[in-house]
Amino acid sequence: MWSGLELPFALLINVVFSVIGYFLTIKLIPSFAEHFIVANLYGRDLNKKSDKKVPEALGVICGAIFLVCMFFFIPIPICKLFIGWKEPLNFDHREFIQFIGALLSICCMIFLGFADDVLNLKWRHKLTLPTVASLPLLMVYYTNISNTTIILPKPFRYIVGSEFDLGLLYYLYMGMLAVFCTNAINILSGINGLEVGQSVIICISIILHNLVELSGPVAAYHRFSLYFMMPFLGTTLGLLRFNWYPSKVFVGDTFCYFAGMTFAVVGILGHFSKTMILFFIPQVLNFLYSTPQLFRLVPCPRHRLPKFNPETGLVGMSKARFKPSEMHILGSFIIRIAEFACVVDVKRGLGEDGQYMEINNLTLNNFLLKILGPTKEQSLTIILLCIQAVCTAAAFFIRYYVSTFFYD
Amino acid sequence: MWSGLELPFALLINVVFSVIGYFLTIKLIPSFAEHFIVANLYGRDLNKKSDKKVPEALGVICGAIFLVCMFFFIPIPICKLFIGWKEPLNFDHREFIQFIGALLSICCMIFLGFADDVLNLKWRHKLTLPTVASLPLLMVYYTNISNTTIILPKPFRYIVGSEFDLGLLYYLYMGMLAVFCTNAINILSGINGLEVGQSVIICISIILHNLVELSGPVAAYHRFSLYFMMPFLGTTLGLLRFNWYPSKVFVGDTFCYFAGMTFAVVGILGHFSKTMILFFIPQVLNFLYSTPQLFRLVPCPRHRLPKFNPETGLVGMSKARFKPSEMHILGSFIIRIAEFACVVDVKRGLGEDGQYMEINNLTLNNFLLKILGPTKEQSLTIILLCIQAVCTAAAFFIRYYVSTFFYD
Repeated sequence: MWSGLELPFALLINVVFSVIGYFLTIKLIPSFAEHFIVANLYGRDLNKKSDKKVPEALGVICGAIFLVCMFFFIPIPICKLFIGWKEPLNFDHREFIQFIGALLSICCMIFLGFADDVLNLKWRHKLTLPTVASLPLLMVYYTNISNTTIILPKPFRYIVGSEFDLGLLYYLYMGMLAVFCTNAINILSGINGLEVGQSVIICISIILHNLVELSGPVAAYHRFSLYFMMPFLGTTLGLLRFNWYPSKVFVGDTFCYFAGMTFAVVGILGHFSKTMILFFIPQVLNFLYSTPQLFRLVPCPRHRLPKFNPETGLVGMSKARFKPSEMHILGSFIIRIAEFACVVDVKRGLGEDGQYMEINNLTLNNFLLKILGPTKEQSLTIILLCIQAVCTAAAFFIRYYVSTFFYD
Repeated sequence: MWSGLELPFALLINVVFSVIGYFLTIKLIPSFAEHFIVANLYGRDLNKKSDKKVPEALGVICGAIFLVCMFFFIPIPICKLFIGWKEPLNFDHREFIQFIGALLSICCMIFLGFADDVLNLKWRHKLTLPTVASLPLLMVYYTNISNTTIILPKPFRYIVGSEFDLGLLYYLYMGMLAVFCTNAINILSGINGLEVGQSVIICISIILHNLVELSGPVAAYHRFSLYFMMPFLGTTLGLLRFNWYPSKVFVGDTFCYFAGMTFAVVGILGHFSKTMILFFIPQVLNFLYSTPQLFRLVPCPRHRLPKFNPETGLVGMSKARFKPSEMHILGSFIIRIAEFACVVDVKRGLGEDGQYMEINNLTLNNFLLKILGPTKEQSLTIILLCIQAVCTAAAFFIRYYVSTFFYD
């Protein structure tokens, strides 16, 4: 009988907290912005004519407000408050562990992300930090769920049976998912509003998926995910208001880590990590396209964001210029193939004695600019976000239609 | 049978992690110190002749290493690893909740402390942040223990009975304890090595207390406390090596918050919060002595640390100079009484027209300097730490001898 009453009640309170989170964010960000500049946390917007200081790493405010909202919210679904506060009889320890463990991972990630923004850590830290922060999450998974069996798609069943126990590999998969989510958002960035915008669309996609599944057999998992996603949406929308073109604040690695870990947490504990990866299609494409530069098979400049032309006010492809000999042999091979497939813009024989070559920096932004030609920064963001939304539609098609051919 | 085996095994692993924590700290602090200066996180040591930049807020490294040690350690006491990792049969959910909840509070506090160091938050934040960070702790207390009954000392029993249920007030008490611990260490500071030194001595006192109680009826609580205190001791000793006179690094509010919250966590979840307050006697005295300035009954300068005399190389009392009319009427009254009791140094009729008065800043450091006269900075630290150690001895005397007259 309770479950009939609780769900709308807890969800309603959650929505209320999310709205409070939104308003807190839009109130606190302007009042803290000056502190960030004083603390030397600022950047210059390379895609603008003006050279003024833009406060950086404001994602930390958004993350801190999210944590506070969650701290106040947790008692609601856990304890049946209306029964009376003295009797934790109907108390669900497992659900509580999930809340606390998930928040520990998220809090740890916000903290490490902020430390990264302040201290400018190295690339190897960017990979180890999310791994460390995901440890509490994996422990909670182990103690609460500890199911490492995956159901195989139909074509494989004749070979290895319908189920396969991944064992420890499953934990490795979850750890890598956390690392992937946190970094995937971080590398699809560089123009105003993109990091936050894509997070908002992924978040809305997850909420839609959760709402659809709320009437299904695993409603509890999706309810749990909703409890995290709605305050995330609230605080993130607040941040987007200031980060949208022209950005008054930058969000920093803090935000990308915070968003990525929150997605990883709900994907893993909500048991829809495969569906969630579908929502990350643009990030996956961007990652795959970036790999030659990320793994240094091809020289990679420090900034890969699109290049601003102050005369036209438009952004165009940014390029990396180097001698062919600076490329790894595998890099040369990949660039040849990519050139043949027309997915990369290559120019050879540049420089005074024709020793240099140039390629566009390998990001989704630059790839789009290669197709579209120079574009307004804001238009580019909107196009990328539309692509993200189209991918969500594709993800739902795969999840609810195509998958029926592979799974029962 | 297991319990006989587990305790030494888990404790042994914990000691190993603590030693690893120590070595990690002494390896990582020097390698990160330069990053802090580049990030504008540095201060000048006002008690030295040289004016060089000393990196600030290095407590964050110590705290992060502590968290990592704990993340790797938690599985050991929770799961009976040697039974085989696939069977979380003997799994203790309640203990796991305590670990995760305690770490969430600590992680949250390190994060907020670091944000405070970077952004220089206001005094009102210094009170709200620990309150927020202690929420997960209170939730864990509520769900796991939820005992809010205190046993009254004998003299009261004739009036209100032997037990008294504080109810919600008990949660208020615990929240205030967290706020007190975090700020008490923060305000007894200002000379090299003092914040970390006092934390080390408090930590050792708690470890001794835990070891004594390990053979008692509530051994589980004290074992839990030990699991936190030993890695804390390891990482903090590593930090002390660099913070000891002459300090190569400063520890920042981050460290004070981290240390205070860790003590509050073990005191509350270990059920020895009263004993723990006894270990904080010097901090309580310093707080009481400081109240007139903290609550602005008497004007309070921005820095209250002892004053360095570059000619002698010694530190002496620092003073606050103001017009008597700037004092609150209650402040005047308190200063009169304190002057009569010879606990404050007051000079009147100063300045050109005799309008000003001067008192020593109301900290334990300055009070000692009033008694001792100008002293070497290092000697002052050592004297204060000796006082801390003597107070620990007094605390044990009260806890194990005096209390027998009041409790059965």
